Amino acid sequence: MAGNVFGQMFRITTWGESHGKAVGVVVDGLPAGLPFSEADIQKELDRRRPGQSEVSTPRHEADRVEILSGIFEGMSTGTPVSMLVWNSDARSSAYDVIKDTPRPGHADFTYMARYGMRDHRGGGRSSARETIGRVAGGALAKLLLSRFGILIAGHVLELGALRAKPLSFEEILENVEKTPVRCADLEAAEKMLEKVAALRQEGDSIGGIVELIIRGVPAGLGEPVFDRLDADLAKALMSIPAVKGFEIGAGFEAARLYGSEMNDPFRIKEGKITTSSNNAGGILGGISTGLDIVCRAAVKPTPSIGKVQQTVDLKTLENTEIAIKGRHDPTIPPRMVPVAEAMVALVIADHMLRSGFINPRTLLE
Amino acid sequence: MAGNVFGQMFRITTWGESHGKAVGVVVDGLPAGLPFSEADIQKELDRRRPGQSEVSTPRHEADRVEILSGIFEGMSTGTPVSMLVWNSDARSSAYDVIKDTPRPGHADFTYMARYGMRDHRGGGRSSARETIGRVAGGALAKLLLSRFGILIAGHVLELGALRAKPLSFEEILENVEKTPVRCADLEAAEKMLEKVAALRQEGDSIGGIVELIIRGVPAGLGEPVFDRLDADLAKALMSIPAVKGFEIGAGFEAARLYGSEMNDPFRIKEGKITTSSNNAGGILGGISTGLDIVCRAAVKPTPSIGKVQQTVDLKTLENTEIAIKGRHDPTIPPRMVPVAEAMVALVIADHMLRSGFINPRTLLE
Amino acid sequence: MAGNVFGQMFRITTWGESHGKAVGVVVDGLPAGLPFSEADIQKELDRRRPGQSEVSTPRHEADRVEILSGIFEGMSTGTPVSMLVWNSDARSSAYDVIKDTPRPGHADFTYMARYGMRDHRGGGRSSARETIGRVAGGALAKLLLSRFGILIAGHVLELGALRAKPLSFEEILENVEKTPVRCADLEAAEKMLEKVAALRQEGDSIGGIVELIIRGVPAGLGEPVFDRLDADLAKALMSIPAVKGFEIGAGFEAARLYGSEMNDPFRIKEGKITTSSNNAGGILGGISTGLDIVCRAAVKPTPSIGKVQQTVDLKTLENTEIAIKGRHDPTIPPRMVPVAEAMVALVIADHMLRSGFINPRTLLE
Amino acid sequence: MAGNVFGQMFRITTWGESHGKAVGVVVDGLPAGLPFSEADIQKELDRRRPGQSEVSTPRHEADRVEILSGIFEGMSTGTPVSMLVWNSDARSSAYDVIKDTPRPGHADFTYMARYGMRDHRGGGRSSARETIGRVAGGALAKLLLSRFGILIAGHVLELGALRAKPLSFEEILENVEKTPVRCADLEAAEKMLEKVAALRQEGDSIGGIVELIIRGVPAGLGEPVFDRLDADLAKALMSIPAVKGFEIGAGFEAARLYGSEMNDPFRIKEGKITTSSNNAGGILGGISTGLDIVCRAAVKPTPSIGKVQQTVDLKTLENTEIAIKGRHDPTIPPRMVPVAEAMVALVIADHMLRSGFINPRTLLE
Repeated sequence: MAGNVFGQMFRITTWGESHGKAVGVVVDGLPAGLPFSEADIQKELDRRRPGQSEVSTPRHEADRVEILSGIFEGMSTGTPVSMLVWNSDARSSAYDVIKDTPRPGHADFTYMARYGMRDHRGGGRSSARETIGRVAGGALAKLLLSRFGILIAGHVLELGALRAKPLSFEEILENVEKTPVRCADLEAAEKMLEKVAALRQEGDSIGGIVELIIRGVPAGLGEPVFDRLDADLAKALMSIPAVKGFEIGAGFEAARLYGSEMNDPFRIKEGKITTSSNNAGGILGGISTGLDIVCRAAVKPTPSIGKVQQTVDLKTLENTEIAIKGRHDPTIPPRMVPVAEAMVALVIADHMLRSGFINPRTLLE
Repeated sequence: MAGNVFGQMFRITTWGESHGKAVGVVVDGLPAGLPFSEADIQKELDRRRPGQSEVSTPRHEADRVEILSGIFEGMSTGTPVSMLVWNSDARSSAYDVIKDTPRPGHADFTYMARYGMRDHRGGGRSSARETIGRVAGGALAKLLLSRFGILIAGHVLELGALRAKPLSFEEILENVEKTPVRCADLEAAEKMLEKVAALRQEGDSIGGIVELIIRGVPAGLGEPVFDRLDADLAKALMSIPAVKGFEIGAGFEAARLYGSEMNDPFRIKEGKITTSSNNAGGILGGISTGLDIVCRAAVKPTPSIGKVQQTVDLKTLENTEIAIKGRHDPTIPPRMVPVAEAMVALVIADHMLRSGFINPRTLLE
Repeated sequence: MAGNVFGQMFRITTWGESHGKAVGVVVDGLPAGLPFSEADIQKELDRRRPGQSEVSTPRHEADRVEILSGIFEGMSTGTPVSMLVWNSDARSSAYDVIKDTPRPGHADFTYMARYGMRDHRGGGRSSARETIGRVAGGALAKLLLSRFGILIAGHVLELGALRAKPLSFEEILENVEKTPVRCADLEAAEKMLEKVAALRQEGDSIGGIVELIIRGVPAGLGEPVFDRLDADLAKALMSIPAVKGFEIGAGFEAARLYGSEMNDPFRIKEGKITTSSNNAGGILGGISTGLDIVCRAAVKPTPSIGKVQQTVDLKTLENTEIAIKGRHDPTIPPRMVPVAEAMVALVIADHMLRSGFINPRTLLE
Repeated sequence: MAGNVFGQMFRITTWGESHGKAVGVVVDGLPAGLPFSEADIQKELDRRRPGQSEVSTPRHEADRVEILSGIFEGMSTGTPVSMLVWNSDARSSAYDVIKDTPRPGHADFTYMARYGMRDHRGGGRSSARETIGRVAGGALAKLLLSRFGILIAGHVLELGALRAKPLSFEEILENVEKTPVRCADLEAAEKMLEKVAALRQEGDSIGGIVELIIRGVPAGLGEPVFDRLDADLAKALMSIPAVKGFEIGAGFEAARLYGSEMNDPFRIKEGKITTSSNNAGGILGGISTGLDIVCRAAVKPTPSIGKVQQTVDLKTLENTEIAIKGRHDPTIPPRMVPVAEAMVALVIADHMLRSGFINPRTLLE
């Protein structure tokens, strides 16, 4: 089973390499009757795009999306939506140095082990540029979900050990795009920006934590025992390059809590069942409770750093060194926010269709 | 897409409820030619079985596995292996109290929201008893993998904030079964046992962390961009009841490391490419490096506690209280170890078949 | 991808060999809230059961179904339904002769080529006994569909070149079970019975055609471009042992018609859109039209015949002969009718769930 | 589960409408290390292309394929291969007449029923133009299979009740492209051409039968009990627009044969096991025997005909008439040959990978 297809009923297939002709995605399963346009996709791609500020790589690409199918008179037809972005700013020769010397922390070595060859230019398929297809597909998922009152807020919770203070869903939505680090706590954001600037000087990089909050998911979403909503969210976020951990609700902290602390008491509020705390993160037994779904992804530091590193020569099988030049983000979480939102949107849209909360045939009934 | 099937080429379907007639599994995709017997399965089921000691529930069930198909003259035939365990010790009436009052931290409420009804006896399908099918299927996966030199060591790394000291793969294998907490650091295990005993008295519970180490996986296993080996391991472990977090290698700690600390330098060792550290946890770009795969699951405290808790009445929609009686483990990680090993084995076996490292037709060539 | 799972949202996994301990099925995806009992399943199994008359093998087995999970207080719970039938009347030694001499027309040789070994007793997994799981799973699909007004009528249209005259849906339902050949044209049935009796004497066998009519399917069911309703029906029926052809509507006859003959004119009837003929067989562009779905399966003669046949010795690789003894139907179509109905029901139920015509979560809303 | 993805390990996703911007395909699962170029794809597309002769529509499109990903230095990389063909010659207004009057025999009505709307221009997604993606994907499958000695010969066996005489595999390969009807019996081809020319005058159309012969498939390919090789071939061919029937080997004729006629005797030939006839069509029990796989698809006449036909008005729900103008093939089978070959190639490639006959990781070992 080839691994470039994600989802069951809302299903995307992504394709493309960093320095190939284009990158793109085919979305299969978007119901007929959703109005959308290239602007809806472009908005999300622009958030993902490099070159936005000092925290990201200065590689400048327009990254203009082109919709090739699945739309008629401004509305989805229920047939596959094919979208692509042409690759333009591709300085392939800059990568010749890594052809035989795998970069530490990158997939160069494992792609060779897996495929017996690789397109080494810019990391090829393992490049973060691959996520363009995810973001374009996720933009459609987000649009679809918004019709059903489901909103997703992603933000940088932690960067370089600097942590945002607790903020409400509304505060996050309001502040997250105000700074290039996408931390909604603007004071913390300031410090993060300083830290990133310093790292850029040193030729080093740092990791962080991206948090996602999903509001408006009805109670009853999820397919035990294996396709639990939290298990599918975990797979979705862990499939993003550089993510090393996933947690939901209390997460790893739950390992140190007592049952009497962890359990969320059920309560009646305005005639409806809810819980007075949300350590579960909105999911019990793999099924949504109706409360906010709160999950986090731990992101490792950018593996491409300016400092000299130890590596090997794949041809001579001898030890050697590498100093990576070129244009690289000193930290990944800010640009990962839209990617993580896209993946989360894909999972929720898929389950909404699988569970019958959204009619998979058409929205026009 | 119904959610009780796991895996692509090594695929299990589990079935059964806590107080139904039986629980079981069908394994589809085991290649022909693997010698096995009920003893191989029983060994793993006995590790999962309750009533083994003071850390687990005293519910006594033989849990004898019966193999119904897929075997001929002591060898797998390549056809589905159906296995079941009869339910015997089922005191259903003990659960009448929870019929209309959902237990905090349990799936009672969400199953009602999802299905409009539920078999409330013992948690029904959401019971940990469901994992019997996983362990039986995983036992076959482990056996298959062992033929290809792949071994899995699971152990309790942390329980109630008590953490085991770092131990080697061999030490873990040697010590893990020596105490009922399945912590291979025997000193820490002692303290954990004390803590669990105290909690049992208080009617409370505690969480912990289970770690899995997989040795012998060849470099080159994994299917980017979505079916990365780490993403599939995350889904597998997050699908186990009570798991709230997953991490691989440095995991959440990676979020606080510099790139110069996180990156594992490549080195030549005995003529082969390896890395001098393993912060990656054996996976780069979603593909195995050939080093040990190291991942962890955060486990919440047992939701069933003796203390009085707040809940609601599903029929009257009024606030009420519940005090859960009955037989419950005060902590889950020790018994989760064989379940987590099973899930991990299923993922690795699946990928070994998908990637052609194991011939999916037959072992007899 | 192992091949013993069928369907996406209404998904069955069958298991078991002719002379193993039992045969069975796990049904995943039956929505919660469907009342059912073992009697509903048994009714269909009894139609499939051998030993019913002179047209089928005298092997006598009770074939009593046991439901092991997925039911609570007489109603489906939305969790997997596991069902099994124990094998009882298993004279394995009767099959020793075929261990090394593959029977012409059987899967003995190809199973050896595929798996490198096989359970030769009674054909093992390739035995028609495997279809018990399909019939049990299909019985649940039929029951579910009947709640939505969908009925399936299967019958023997042709046997040994004797063809039934055209009959209405109602006539088929009324007459099909009146004779053991399951031909609803009772005059033709008489002649078929005579032919079969003569063949039994001669130690030969004959094929036929099974027709399925599905009434009540709403217009708009099917998932182009690959998961067309007719393509999925074709796969379903072609997956039954001994089926060599499939056609829908005018079928192979369509290859000889003019467009002006083949096209079904659209007409308004009682304010609704219909067609005045049904050469399409109820499906256009892979999507149901709302008219009866009519499809047929061509069934080869029973490969097990009493006459001496040429074969080879798998060990010595020399030519030899075989005369198959034992209990075999001289013709397959009559007993295939319930199996074909089951497969068709599984496809329709799957698509009704995939398309949102049936709520996949629960029937209790 | 959206229906535009086909295959498990060699998996294609097609997209595009007749009058959208482009049509295309993403191929996921092509192993690394296969040399290929646009010329390999173009060759097959040119065979499918309209406007080749008097038997096909004079619509002229270059249909130039563009490969966008998955290739590096002329070799497959193991990552998805995205290919597209721009739509150029699109006279949309010619189709305004069919917006509200569904064409008999077309999917216009069912697409409305399924999606609640449709892109009516040229049939939109239900247009035969959709098969471009299949042919492009199938071209890669054919190329891969040819490396393993597997060849596919498709030809028109019957057209308008005129049937080709029996021909050898070699004769078919040699003659099939000599006439625009793709019948390898050149005398029959002559008569078919005359018949088609006459029909064009009359404004009518005719059906036919396409036969596929697959040579070189090793014994042991297929995944019982559901993913039998013949069942998957049936689904593949039945998924092509206008196909109304499928048969393998003796096919529907098998329904009238005696077992003593139908069974293929096993024989030793040059030290290997074979059969002296091939009524099975190369598949027993769903698994290949190693002999030629021979299957056929029944194709209905082109539904678009010049004659006046009865239909309805979708808006007023009144009876009306339609006379279809525009450019249409009077018969489909000749142009279907490359499409059918593509579908068959996709199935065989998929199973070769699933069964481990082809290493799914790479061809470079």
